[in-house]
Amino acid sequence: MVTLKQIAAMAGVSRGTVDRVVNHRGGVNEETARKVRAIVDSVGYVPNSIGRTLANSRKNFRLGFLIFQSTSANPFFTDVLRGVECAAQELREFGVTVEAASCGMEDATGREQIGRIDRLVRAGIQGLAITPFDHPAVAAKLRKLAEQGIPVINVNSDLADSGRLCYIGSDYRKAGETAGGLMGLFHRTEGKIGIVTGSPLVVCHTEREKGFREILEKRYPELSIVSREVNQDDDFVSYDVTRRMLEEYPELTGLYIAAGGVYGACRAVEAVRPASRPVIVSHDKAETTLEMLKKGVITATIGQEAFRQGHEPLQMLYDYLSRGISPEADAVYTRLDICIRENL
Amino acid sequence: MVTLKQIAAMAGVSRGTVDRVVNHRGGVNEETARKVRAIVDSVGYVPNSIGRTLANSRKNFRLGFLIFQSTSANPFFTDVLRGVECAAQELREFGVTVEAASCGMEDATGREQIGRIDRLVRAGIQGLAITPFDHPAVAAKLRKLAEQGIPVINVNSDLADSGRLCYIGSDYRKAGETAGGLMGLFHRTEGKIGIVTGSPLVVCHTEREKGFREILEKRYPELSIVSREVNQDDDFVSYDVTRRMLEEYPELTGLYIAAGGVYGACRAVEAVRPASRPVIVSHDKAETTLEMLKKGVITATIGQEAFRQGHEPLQMLYDYLSRGISPEADAVYTRLDICIRENL
Repeated sequence: MVTLKQIAAMAGVSRGTVDRVVNHRGGVNEETARKVRAIVDSVGYVPNSIGRTLANSRKNFRLGFLIFQSTSANPFFTDVLRGVECAAQELREFGVTVEAASCGMEDATGREQIGRIDRLVRAGIQGLAITPFDHPAVAAKLRKLAEQGIPVINVNSDLADSGRLCYIGSDYRKAGETAGGLMGLFHRTEGKIGIVTGSPLVVCHTEREKGFREILEKRYPELSIVSREVNQDDDFVSYDVTRRMLEEYPELTGLYIAAGGVYGACRAVEAVRPASRPVIVSHDKAETTLEMLKKGVITATIGQEAFRQGHEPLQMLYDYLSRGISPEADAVYTRLDICIRENL
Repeated sequence: MVTLKQIAAMAGVSRGTVDRVVNHRGGVNEETARKVRAIVDSVGYVPNSIGRTLANSRKNFRLGFLIFQSTSANPFFTDVLRGVECAAQELREFGVTVEAASCGMEDATGREQIGRIDRLVRAGIQGLAITPFDHPAVAAKLRKLAEQGIPVINVNSDLADSGRLCYIGSDYRKAGETAGGLMGLFHRTEGKIGIVTGSPLVVCHTEREKGFREILEKRYPELSIVSREVNQDDDFVSYDVTRRMLEEYPELTGLYIAAGGVYGACRAVEAVRPASRPVIVSHDKAETTLEMLKKGVITATIGQEAFRQGHEPLQMLYDYLSRGISPEADAVYTRLDICIRENL
């Protein structure tokens, strides 16, 4: 049988280019691709990824997945972890071992996370998927891994200058724009909006808020933002600040919950305004969020494919290490998944 | 290495049961599953689907996909076809050949479709995915295929008594409920709604309308349906009937387009009510629909994973024929994917 290498020689291109063409992964200019395809067709080459996979299954890769701690305040990561476990199970038969670890988000110096990374490296990982803490020291650490030949994929939160192979997660600006769009469509008239958000140090929250504000300004100028509170992603702080907001602004028609603490904010709405509730738009699909959606307290929530964020990075690392296949894009954005009561 | 068969013998269950347990496909009672897992763990068995796949790749299956004709009036099937082509490409290296064919929806007797099925059978297909015409003669034909050992998967439109292995497509009732939910949320006040729908003979249209009406009655009694027109999925008929509706009911606040002909209906809205447009909720993500969504004419459209409807049935048929794996459920419902301008 003709090999990729032989086709590459015939076409005068690299083996990687032929691999990209026959596996439809793009990134090859159209003229070259046409030339390669002509040769592929003329020799009757059929890509044999099964054989290659079988050969690779003897390499016994070890991959790491370092995730933020899943706490009751942020159950989002529970679903990510399900994705990690599923991928680990699938890759097991290809000889891949996955080391999953987690660490908190409290240490503002990033030192705790760096310590965890070091432990994974000592355990012999050849690739790392990580929800990186937003700190230059963590970025420097990840750059160093890449230099050592350990590819890194940033998950859920991107980090500049970290030399990562790819980012996979939400486009937070667009997520906020979607929330703003929904808020506008759910009003279709004048309205007064409150925002409850998490830590101002977390990029995903600030980006969402930016997107939300931009869409309101651009498309729904009849909506004005009258109040903004910070809940530190904690349900009880969220309860308190939302209560105070509702008492101070009884005319509030909409509430945008841009971060965690969704359940606490909803409980405050139930407590203060049982009859005439504001429209509520939130993010993610935590169980308590879906409960509030079903009850009609939350009007819409926007998911971001949590499971996929756990599952896909490991597959990407495996493809990269075993076959030299880079992710299709520099950043892979997960779907912004609008949920109302009826399509749950 | 220990084989599935040996584990089955040890556990006193069938080989298929062991396969279900080790591949996490469910359908095995918990006690049996526990017993199997205990044996699997004690012998250190690792499922080797690669080896099995390799063995099966020598069987050279031939699969058929019979789809409704993609016309300009219903570009939905263009995306389904992309899924078919992608799956055909992927399965090629497993020795699978896919015969894709299409036929119109005009022949109310189903005879045209039956003729197409016969041609595929004569071409030697071992499994069939089909968007079945809603006619007892087609159901009888599909039952006969199943009896001959040719498994059938109904795609996009289910057909009672067709003996199909599985249905994959939209849950149309729920799709209509989602449309009703959005219409309610976009109003939040009194409103007068018009419905434009396709052929009354197509189950997906009638089911959507039922779901839409039910949600309005149940959750949004302040909305009343004042008009209903049939457009036969044709853009120009759609244009005419929508124009007439808008002229007859200038107070219309909402328009639900339950079938094809979305573009024609939108053009009528643009022509008659350039300034104060009704809220429009539609289905699917045809290019012209997305264009109208971006322009702000359509408020929201509900997708149904067209690509997946082309892709997944072929994978299911291959799994069934090559490894005896049945689809996970009797009916696999695709995601109801709400799109507004901001999350496109």
